Amino acid sequence: MTVSIIGIGLLGGSFALAVREKYPKMRFIGVDASPVNGQLALAKGIVDEILPLNDAVAQSNLVVLATPVNVIIDLLPLVLDLVPQGATVLDLGSTKELICAVADQHTKRAQFVAAHPMAGTENSGPGAAFRELLPGKNLIICDREKSNPESVTLAESLFRDIGMKLFYMTPQEHDLHLAYVSHLSHISAFALGLTVLEKEKDEQAIFDMASTGFGSTVRLAKSSPQMWAPIFDQNRVNVSDALAAYIEFLQQFKQVIDNQDIKTSLDFMQRANVIRRVLDGIEKR
Amino acid sequence: MTVSIIGIGLLGGSFALAVREKYPKMRFIGVDASPVNGQLALAKGIVDEILPLNDAVAQSNLVVLATPVNVIIDLLPLVLDLVPQGATVLDLGSTKELICAVADQHTKRAQFVAAHPMAGTENSGPGAAFRELLPGKNLIICDREKSNPESVTLAESLFRDIGMKLFYMTPQEHDLHLAYVSHLSHISAFALGLTVLEKEKDEQAIFDMASTGFGSTVRLAKSSPQMWAPIFDQNRVNVSDALAAYIEFLQQFKQVIDNQDIKTSLDFMQRANVIRRVLDGIEKR
Repeated sequence: MTVSIIGIGLLGGSFALAVREKYPKMRFIGVDASPVNGQLALAKGIVDEILPLNDAVAQSNLVVLATPVNVIIDLLPLVLDLVPQGATVLDLGSTKELICAVADQHTKRAQFVAAHPMAGTENSGPGAAFRELLPGKNLIICDREKSNPESVTLAESLFRDIGMKLFYMTPQEHDLHLAYVSHLSHISAFALGLTVLEKEKDEQAIFDMASTGFGSTVRLAKSSPQMWAPIFDQNRVNVSDALAAYIEFLQQFKQVIDNQDIKTSLDFMQRANVIRRVLDGIEKR
Repeated sequence: MTVSIIGIGLLGGSFALAVREKYPKMRFIGVDASPVNGQLALAKGIVDEILPLNDAVAQSNLVVLATPVNVIIDLLPLVLDLVPQGATVLDLGSTKELICAVADQHTKRAQFVAAHPMAGTENSGPGAAFRELLPGKNLIICDREKSNPESVTLAESLFRDIGMKLFYMTPQEHDLHLAYVSHLSHISAFALGLTVLEKEKDEQAIFDMASTGFGSTVRLAKSSPQMWAPIFDQNRVNVSDALAAYIEFLQQFKQVIDNQDIKTSLDFMQRANVIRRVLDGIEKR
């Protein structure tokens, strides 16, 4: 069996490393816009060879799209045009509504499986890929009924084999939920990083005085702009709603602090504390 | 030598545990508004006995104020009234301007040392205290020249002995910097927790779909409201400025997303990425 990974970064690379461990004889082809990333992926043992997109897809049983989501939109029709009969195209993009809409326009829609692993780090590129990223994490498959049973079986088998837990929903549900539990927290971290860098002119002071709590909150501000700009764009309606709600809470909190309204300040934080129930569950995974 | 810890929670308890390891014969008295916390602190070996405030202070060479900052404001004049000649009063509060102003009004100001360890977790109470919290972290001392040399020597010796790195600044500088590198990130996390809990009605979806990135960003939303409400209140001018700047960046980001202005979106995130330089340093500590 031959698998092509289009975009050999954190996610595509980590998927390949995990699957290779379970299937040592599977052949992996890498496709990447960056020749250096291709060389690094070879040197790291993520893929066995690097080929141009057309050559890779033509000889693959499975093609995994793991590029930024704007590139997935561009490549998906092309890859479906090229993919052999009986082969499967899988995407790992962080948005699902637009990608699934593009897939729905294609005559070979049934060969496509839309997936999104709930995993990542703030790092990117083949150097950031590691075998342990996906095992134990959750995976969402959208519009499962639109994919043919053989393609679903292949995708689900590989994800289960590397220890992922599968969930199913519509692309609309996926994008709405992700706006709140992922996209918003990235924007809050980017904006926090910007605020501290631009308002706190004394960088040494940030360094000396910031504790691990600051590091934790702002960590996602290190994430790849090239990956996130198209995610925010494709999910802009939901992200904009989530941001509006977040800004509203911050404005209320500011008003409460300005008014020295300790009682409401306590109430805000006590309501936020309920998140402990959710977080303690996530940390136990 | 006898040390009283007033408020035997995360910070006071962790300080006592670290100092005890270096000075096994030092006697530790605990004072806490909660009898249960007192019993837990005894059971954990944080202190040797629990006494009422007056009795504890009267027999102490060092009194450490480690309560929420509003309680420090109330207790500081009382403790300075009671403290024996030659003894030292030390506070570990997260704000410094108001606390130092209160101390400045007291005739025994020179017996007081104002300090703030750059360390914490989202947990509270004696159960959350651990010996490794403070070693390796930074500590800020404010208005050092207003404390008498013997009190400074005692405080600095203990902090250095447990492996802390000392920094000096005015209370005004301290509170301004802390608004950006600590207080703002707590508010951003509290508001993020609130937004997700109140707008994302499907709590199971949060649980299934949230990744470790979300957990990291929102972790501080688990922090103690009783500790943080008075910090935000005492530092409200700086915190309000920091929040206004943060809200402004978020509004700009929302506008950029609404306008599908990918170029500016990329630019925002690339500027925020610079925080990596600071964070990589913090993580290495």
